[in-house]
Amino acid sequence: MIVQGYNPRTGEPIGEPVTETTDSEVDGVVTAAAAAFEAWSTTPAADRAVVLEAVADALDAESELLVATADGETALGVPRLTTELKRTTNQLRLFGEVLREGSYVEATIDSPDPDTVPPRPDLRRVLRPLGTVAVFSASNFPFAFSVAGGDTASALAAGCAVVVKAHSAHPGTSRETARVVTAALAAAGAPEGLFGIVHGVQAGVALVRHPRVRAVGFTGSTGGGRALFDIAQGRPDPIPFYGELGSVNPAVVLPDAAAARPEEIATAFAQSLTMGVGQFCTNPGLLFAPEALVEPLGAAVAASHGGTMLNERMCDSYRSGTDALAAGDLVTEVSTGDRPADGWSVAPRLFTVPLAVFADNVEKLTEEHFGPAALVVTYDDPADLLAVLPKLPGTLTGTVHSDPTEHPLAGQVAEVLRRVAGRLVFNGWPTGVAVAWGMHHGGPWPSTTNPLHTSVGSTSIRRWIAPVTYQSWPDGLLPAELKDGNPLGIPRRVDGVLGTH
Amino acid sequence: MIVQGYNPRTGEPIGEPVTETTDSEVDGVVTAAAAAFEAWSTTPAADRAVVLEAVADALDAESELLVATADGETALGVPRLTTELKRTTNQLRLFGEVLREGSYVEATIDSPDPDTVPPRPDLRRVLRPLGTVAVFSASNFPFAFSVAGGDTASALAAGCAVVVKAHSAHPGTSRETARVVTAALAAAGAPEGLFGIVHGVQAGVALVRHPRVRAVGFTGSTGGGRALFDIAQGRPDPIPFYGELGSVNPAVVLPDAAAARPEEIATAFAQSLTMGVGQFCTNPGLLFAPEALVEPLGAAVAASHGGTMLNERMCDSYRSGTDALAAGDLVTEVSTGDRPADGWSVAPRLFTVPLAVFADNVEKLTEEHFGPAALVVTYDDPADLLAVLPKLPGTLTGTVHSDPTEHPLAGQVAEVLRRVAGRLVFNGWPTGVAVAWGMHHGGPWPSTTNPLHTSVGSTSIRRWIAPVTYQSWPDGLLPAELKDGNPLGIPRRVDGVLGTH
Repeated sequence: MIVQGYNPRTGEPIGEPVTETTDSEVDGVVTAAAAAFEAWSTTPAADRAVVLEAVADALDAESELLVATADGETALGVPRLTTELKRTTNQLRLFGEVLREGSYVEATIDSPDPDTVPPRPDLRRVLRPLGTVAVFSASNFPFAFSVAGGDTASALAAGCAVVVKAHSAHPGTSRETARVVTAALAAAGAPEGLFGIVHGVQAGVALVRHPRVRAVGFTGSTGGGRALFDIAQGRPDPIPFYGELGSVNPAVVLPDAAAARPEEIATAFAQSLTMGVGQFCTNPGLLFAPEALVEPLGAAVAASHGGTMLNERMCDSYRSGTDALAAGDLVTEVSTGDRPADGWSVAPRLFTVPLAVFADNVEKLTEEHFGPAALVVTYDDPADLLAVLPKLPGTLTGTVHSDPTEHPLAGQVAEVLRRVAGRLVFNGWPTGVAVAWGMHHGGPWPSTTNPLHTSVGSTSIRRWIAPVTYQSWPDGLLPAELKDGNPLGIPRRVDGVLGTH
Repeated sequence: MIVQGYNPRTGEPIGEPVTETTDSEVDGVVTAAAAAFEAWSTTPAADRAVVLEAVADALDAESELLVATADGETALGVPRLTTELKRTTNQLRLFGEVLREGSYVEATIDSPDPDTVPPRPDLRRVLRPLGTVAVFSASNFPFAFSVAGGDTASALAAGCAVVVKAHSAHPGTSRETARVVTAALAAAGAPEGLFGIVHGVQAGVALVRHPRVRAVGFTGSTGGGRALFDIAQGRPDPIPFYGELGSVNPAVVLPDAAAARPEEIATAFAQSLTMGVGQFCTNPGLLFAPEALVEPLGAAVAASHGGTMLNERMCDSYRSGTDALAAGDLVTEVSTGDRPADGWSVAPRLFTVPLAVFADNVEKLTEEHFGPAALVVTYDDPADLLAVLPKLPGTLTGTVHSDPTEHPLAGQVAEVLRRVAGRLVFNGWPTGVAVAWGMHHGGPWPSTTNPLHTSVGSTSIRRWIAPVTYQSWPDGLLPAELKDGNPLGIPRRVDGVLGTH
């Protein structure tokens, strides 16, 4: 069996096909990764930082080839893919910074206290890597959420070994990226086998079932993610499964904002909706707005451009999903943008529905149509809106557009949205996810499988590390992070107080 | 249907039976808790601290009644139960300290940077409570891991509402504790319904299935925990399930330590093994030692005392489990301690097996026999030991006894044990779990359902809180923890740097 890439602009095969990885080959890759973990997990964090930076530099050096390969397989365009690769290498460098700063291990020291109940011995807690991690690539980010993306970067930073399941939509990009990563790791002195890649659906299943795999990162559809989640949780020894699944990303336009700047909001909305042909997990697919905003929104979408989708399945699914919505009697179609004539291309589509109808059909009307489609839910009274928002499914983001006159109402909306969303955007749009210490790219089910974790930003490293507490150990046998005198100079908590002691 | 407590010393019913909670009553309790969550989750942390301390004081004030009730239902004895209640109230007070210190919300602020790739807006991240939490009480800790125990304390501290599923072995203690907690919460001004309690197996299942329950804490058997874990993960919207299940707690005695202080080690081991009739999740059930230590270990166990177990099922299970072990041909019985003549009482039992036989039967010989039974695995060459230890199942603790002469070997053992254990004890015993910032009471499956989390210590609060990032919000609408100027004076990370800014 083979995995063949296709040119979405023509529907024709592109590049050499990749052979699917057999179960016994998967076992070999995982076994090698698990062996490499032994050395990598005890490599000092500062040395791991140097290796990550070497991988970043190597990817940057091959940017032209990688971007061209990815553009051929995804049609995302050279400018976007160049930026995405830069984002990917900056992400590797951010983890270098995280490793040098050192607080990610949460070094914690408690002095003995024989007089408390129960008595307290000398306790020293630190986070250590879990083992070999499986990473499932996404179709829509061939770099940033794929072979060398955030899951791989954070897991390698944590001290874990990584085996990537390549996405079938960009096998050539995956193979080339893996080649660059493997060579850069070897040149930087990382243990052989630390990073591996497998291809094919069955290889992914074998990976999640493998006894040596200790955690899974996944970005993709709700259906695919749920199936793998169930396999991971159904193991004799369930393992952590961090999946980013579907997200509707509701945006709320408050009355004064809608009245004060209808054109500005409509134009920016259409831009966010159609960016990357709407193939973002943070695409704003659901807008709550006063009725008066429907006309400018419709005009903006009518003037917007569609494009070529990542693959045939997505294109078909978008077309049939939005056609069914249009043919149903729940919503009204407002307008349609244009689309390129050839290939797997689609047009932006805008629908509208009154709040009362939406409230009675939340499950049906929050089904994600991956691509540049959105539903405007019109409301009259913000109080009605506040009653409906808690019914929304878990989502990565929630957005509020507010004028200063209505800040108290914006605060009320935020209090409701923060129960269902992982990131709250004010007077902006949710697309564009910064890679930073304070980013949270997560949210309640089904936007992710675990609301405590993020797949973007510094704290994404925490998915791959777990605490160990050393009780009454001699200083000479402690990890460097926990030794007396703080030889690494990292932030630590000593007797409850944070500092660099 | 009713839940009836029994006196383990006589096998006779004790106290008034409690009626099992019906599904519709469970729904009522959860609905009230979810309503109370709205107010409690926005109560300032410092005010929640005062409430927790009021609950602690109220429990201390009723210590005599609570301890007497618990002793009647568990036979754990007044001294142990008095200490356990004190530990429980100190735990509530520790969370008061955690709330005032404030770093548990991980307030993080990133300044905008339009020039990075991708551009960074103003990002402010904070951890917020998940919602209503279900807590399953344990049989063996009627206070510290029950109605007002660690899960309840950490969840209330987090700002969550709590519904406890009482353990059937101590319904009277549960009812009395719930009465004190409910009254103290009301007197301290907490919202009505914030804390609830339900009884019966079916009520527990209904709780885990309830749509308004957002996370579960559990302490108990591997079988019961797995069943509830599967229900939680099988929901249409899976929720975090934090279970502490079974643990074998391996202890390794290195050759020089065994030679230098055989009597001391044997005596302390027997004491740890028989404490609380071996009914601790950290009971040292598996000891790796040189052959020469078997005789003093056998003598110490022969001189040790058994006692009355918590309930009939546990007593039967211990007797039949250890009888089957003794009757099999894998291990040899070394010695037996004495046992009280009446009630559900058992005797300590010590078995031994050579390392080679153990290595071929790890799964069978690491089955937990809850109670004062242990297996001594004898080894000749520490190198053989290092090869076998990685095969152990996940466990809460791993212990090493080492003389200074053999520290390098102790370090090698620790490197292996930290892959399977959450806490490493040096020259001590694992029973006695301090409540502290640096404690980790967790470990890989099956010792817990999630290796990242602890059910004891300050960081146990993290199970009930999840991140929300505010992007570009006006200062006036931000939570106090994230406002400019740090009005709460809590530790925060600003542009990557930890401090109080």
